[in-house]
Amino acid sequence: MRRSECKKIDPDLGVLSSRTLFALQKDLFATLAEQGHPDLRPRHGAVLAYLDEEGTRATDLATQSGQHKQVIGTLVDELAELGYVVREPDPADRRAKLIVPTGKGLDLMARSDAVVAAIERQHAEAAGEADYAVFKRVFRLVAARQSGQAE
Amino acid sequence: MRRSECKKIDPDLGVLSSRTLFALQKDLFATLAEQGHPDLRPRHGAVLAYLDEEGTRATDLATQSGQHKQVIGTLVDELAELGYVVREPDPADRRAKLIVPTGKGLDLMARSDAVVAAIERQHAEAAGEADYAVFKRVFRLVAARQSGQAE
Repeated sequence: MRRSECKKIDPDLGVLSSRTLFALQKDLFATLAEQGHPDLRPRHGAVLAYLDEEGTRATDLATQSGQHKQVIGTLVDELAELGYVVREPDPADRRAKLIVPTGKGLDLMARSDAVVAAIERQHAEAAGEADYAVFKRVFRLVAARQSGQAE
Repeated sequence: MRRSECKKIDPDLGVLSSRTLFALQKDLFATLAEQGHPDLRPRHGAVLAYLDEEGTRATDLATQSGQHKQVIGTLVDELAELGYVVREPDPADRRAKLIVPTGKGLDLMARSDAVVAAIERQHAEAAGEADYAVFKRVFRLVAARQSGQAE
């Protein structure tokens, strides 16, 4: 059997993660565009997915997204330009800055979480709730093991 | 609870896919570098993961990886430059070109598939074989549904 045929029938973890991530991003950002956020690009997810309402340090965004601090800096510049975040001094450490979502950013974050939750509910219905729960539990373990973080 | 804390305890499908994909790529390409392939970058996976021993059309690589044809073209240029692939006329259609792996490319493909399989065996052992099988089955369904391909 051709290698590509094998991978279609029994795709490996990398193929499945890649296909799911890029299709989910496409779906999510198309929906967000319809909901009043047309300027965002999937790359901005590395910041927006992990941002806290109260603000987050760039180093924490880098750790959680697995992206380099420089990449996060560029994304924050773009998001600030688009009006989604502002940089503010961190009250806990005056030398540090927090990336804080604006009202527009908060709206986007709430919508984004809701869209992903709705997509997951549909997958859970298609797969069966019990099997989807096993899927999520094993996926948490795999992601933690793979990224070297104990669960 | 802070949003980032919720996402740590119950990460969504996008977070899990992203964390797994980027950590797996890092792991895989570090191992491949040790095994004599130091010049490859994770982005090359979009071509190398789907390439057939007999060669593959660029359009098929684009479909399978979910990347634009232009992106695939650039990656193929880089891989040709590094000696992993050559472009040859497609015997089935003289107007089309096949991307065909060289000996170096075939070595890389075999090693890459073996490394990912070994990583997955370790995850399956940690999760339990039965639960890992459910994980893979639901993941195939989710990836197919998400990318709009019926399974």
